[in-house]
Amino acid sequence: MDVDTREGPRIGDAFGAILMACLEAGTEPGRVREIVERDDGYLDSQDAANYFLPYERWDRLDHWLAGRVVGRVLDVGSGAGRAALRFQEEGRKVTALDISPLACEVCRRRGVDDVVKGTVFELPSSAVGLSYDTVLMLGNNLGLLESRRHARVLLEALDFVTQPGASILGRGVDPYITDNPAHLGYHRRNRVLGRMGGQIRIRVRHQDMATPYFDYLFATADELRSLVAKTRWVLDEYEVDEPTYAVVFKKR
Amino acid sequence: MDVDTREGPRIGDAFGAILMACLEAGTEPGRVREIVERDDGYLDSQDAANYFLPYERWDRLDHWLAGRVVGRVLDVGSGAGRAALRFQEEGRKVTALDISPLACEVCRRRGVDDVVKGTVFELPSSAVGLSYDTVLMLGNNLGLLESRRHARVLLEALDFVTQPGASILGRGVDPYITDNPAHLGYHRRNRVLGRMGGQIRIRVRHQDMATPYFDYLFATADELRSLVAKTRWVLDEYEVDEPTYAVVFKKR
Repeated sequence: MDVDTREGPRIGDAFGAILMACLEAGTEPGRVREIVERDDGYLDSQDAANYFLPYERWDRLDHWLAGRVVGRVLDVGSGAGRAALRFQEEGRKVTALDISPLACEVCRRRGVDDVVKGTVFELPSSAVGLSYDTVLMLGNNLGLLESRRHARVLLEALDFVTQPGASILGRGVDPYITDNPAHLGYHRRNRVLGRMGGQIRIRVRHQDMATPYFDYLFATADELRSLVAKTRWVLDEYEVDEPTYAVVFKKR
Repeated sequence: MDVDTREGPRIGDAFGAILMACLEAGTEPGRVREIVERDDGYLDSQDAANYFLPYERWDRLDHWLAGRVVGRVLDVGSGAGRAALRFQEEGRKVTALDISPLACEVCRRRGVDDVVKGTVFELPSSAVGLSYDTVLMLGNNLGLLESRRHARVLLEALDFVTQPGASILGRGVDPYITDNPAHLGYHRRNRVLGRMGGQIRIRVRHQDMATPYFDYLFATADELRSLVAKTRWVLDEYEVDEPTYAVVFKKR
């Protein structure tokens, strides 16, 4: 205990490194973990193989959403490309979008045709010209709404790149269905800071690497309704398997 | 990215909390992970169910060591008590020793008769009076030797509580069988600091809790030979499954 604690993890594409390690390990469960650290030090992990699940092994809510995919697809936060690959195989034109360079590389190696590294705001005009019919935010990626303010900006950007009548198909988690004191305390502290209760700040860690911290939103359906209230989007359908749910936003 | 990062994990018995959570979840694999953080930020994890493995599912080297257990047994760092339970069922007198209060509670709930919370230095005189014949340091617990200096002190304490001709049966890992740059860099840095290459400083993390950092030693058999050179112990037998090994120290 008498030597200085050393520097923390180096900052890098830990998320993409996890997906690449899992791809190179054969994508079977039990090989690579995704570890997520919240900024209060709370650690959680899941099997990285979840990012590679074939369509048959998706859960009920993903299947429910999959039946609502139409036209051209924008897969926001595409990860290892499980959704992009599925809908591409259905014959659709799909753009896989991820800010992680290595996640994009994993998508390409697995055969996704159109992969864009970046955010919705950075979509090249060629992609925007496509005007998507379906936006996917699977795997809790409604979390990419981040916060009240960012949600409005992101929903506006998604309006800009989609056709009239387009849908956003998203997955989220109700953060309040918990009795874990660490989570309940985090929600309280968020509210004191003027943040939404489930507005968590997290980073992904892999070996000696961590991503920068980023905001990720866990919200109830009611909270989502309030977030989209002044946008072009309306909460159209909602299906739940507590504590997770699937939601369909329609462009009005 | 505009709000202060909050405080890190709170300090507590994260190791014991993991074992208790795994016990309460039924001890099957896939429920609870043990996450270990090295002080350079390197994260690793394993299934906590490993601490509950029944004898039939122990690995080859544990079975090899189990065949060398005689007389009264001191299980140092007993964890969830898998070894203590096994040798108690064989009819032996076993003391399970662990510094984690919750690990001790898990051992008791699982039926270990003699559980002591503490270190070898804190063994009550009643236990010392037993004068053990076999000391177990399974599950990489040769790591509890910590450092050159601590190894000598601990081996002296183990001399004090054991019979003439006693054995220490231990498991360790050769840290140098790796091509991971993060590990190789850590070894180099350790040597610069005057530490042994595999003398790692780690803490166990669970949800929002972390243990204090502690030293844990990964050493080669040659390094162990040098560590015990001026003690009453001699490296008597050695069996390897790279990168792990089992070793028997005999009291001369």
